[in-house]
Amino acid sequence: MTNLRVGSAFDAHQIQPGKPCWIAGILHPDFDGCEGHSDGDVVSHAIVDAVLSACSLGDLGSFVGVGRPEYDGVRGVQLLGELRGLLTQHGHTVVNVSAQLIAQTPKMAAMREECEQVLSDALGAPVSISATTTDHMGFTGSGEGRAAIATALVELA
Amino acid sequence: MTNLRVGSAFDAHQIQPGKPCWIAGILHPDFDGCEGHSDGDVVSHAIVDAVLSACSLGDLGSFVGVGRPEYDGVRGVQLLGELRGLLTQHGHTVVNVSAQLIAQTPKMAAMREECEQVLSDALGAPVSISATTTDHMGFTGSGEGRAAIATALVELA
Amino acid sequence: MTNLRVGSAFDAHQIQPGKPCWIAGILHPDFDGCEGHSDGDVVSHAIVDAVLSACSLGDLGSFVGVGRPEYDGVRGVQLLGELRGLLTQHGHTVVNVSAQLIAQTPKMAAMREECEQVLSDALGAPVSISATTTDHMGFTGSGEGRAAIATALVELA
Repeated sequence: MTNLRVGSAFDAHQIQPGKPCWIAGILHPDFDGCEGHSDGDVVSHAIVDAVLSACSLGDLGSFVGVGRPEYDGVRGVQLLGELRGLLTQHGHTVVNVSAQLIAQTPKMAAMREECEQVLSDALGAPVSISATTTDHMGFTGSGEGRAAIATALVELA
Repeated sequence: MTNLRVGSAFDAHQIQPGKPCWIAGILHPDFDGCEGHSDGDVVSHAIVDAVLSACSLGDLGSFVGVGRPEYDGVRGVQLLGELRGLLTQHGHTVVNVSAQLIAQTPKMAAMREECEQVLSDALGAPVSISATTTDHMGFTGSGEGRAAIATALVELA
Repeated sequence: MTNLRVGSAFDAHQIQPGKPCWIAGILHPDFDGCEGHSDGDVVSHAIVDAVLSACSLGDLGSFVGVGRPEYDGVRGVQLLGELRGLLTQHGHTVVNVSAQLIAQTPKMAAMREECEQVLSDALGAPVSISATTTDHMGFTGSGEGRAAIATALVELA
């Protein structure tokens, strides 16, 4: 039997006026960020959840805990770095991750390769980023929030 | 060429006041369940659809048929058991499934491991469960309904 | 290390009264189609994005460009054919794709196998199609739009 496993996850956060916009590991200075205990980076959060699920290691809530002050405003790339450490302890290897931002803003075309580099460096494995919108429909289309999906392929120890 | 295949699926149901809440294979007694011909277990339904799709064996509609009275109120774990039988007939093996509940309720943190055990036993393969919300946005955020996504890795005969 | 990679994507478009309804590679004559620069085939678009992401070859926007007149009204199957050419150039092979329409219309049960055949022929790899609804909730449930998800497994050169 193969040691490969898949995992997938979704995340969504409300947009919070005035909060810095960290999305897919980088700062987008012209946009409002997403609310949340953390930096609100829906792309990084979906990646963490997808990798944890592939490895049967719980989810983002069990990984960072709830209400722990040391994670106030924690950056997505820090979470990916901690995830990398957890996987190393278990001997698991991330083969690749595919993640997609579902949002009207920020436009990712010009930033996509930089995001892929930053997230891949943090996770220690290739991360592909794409972006789409809901064509002005629903809560991501109205600008109320942003969402992301991610799928991970991992090789267990 | 590898015999591995992936499949993914989404499911959503409205919440129906007074209906028992079967989610991810177990009963959550403090919450209303989801409407539908079946028990309304969006997590189990997404898993069935993802596995069928990975195996190119149709979808939930073709699997259980539409309007068949023997499936009134059918439990998600029964569907997973029947799916397991179908895969055995074909000689296919589920490598793993990753599923996520997208809903404001029930909170899954305390139930996650029990759900994983029940679903894995029914399917005969490891199932990872995570949970997230849409941060009070959209139809899952308002409490109108619940949704789930699932991704499956299978090894064909 | 394995040469397998996964990719996943979501797409959504508004329904546009009077536009032909191309969904999952075929024409559904009794329904309005989806708006967009292209034929609005959300299923084909999600497949293209998922495969590109698995191969780390960008996304639909970078693949077809924005505002190029030769892609006005482009059919989903043409995009899949061009994608197939790109993958051949790189030596990558699509193992399989699983895609799901999330919409109230068209009903896919009677068309599913034909869609699978058309899309598989265009891509040169097995494509599984399923369909679900959001149970009359949200923007796909109201008939405002349609959405699709897709997950791809590819083998890199």
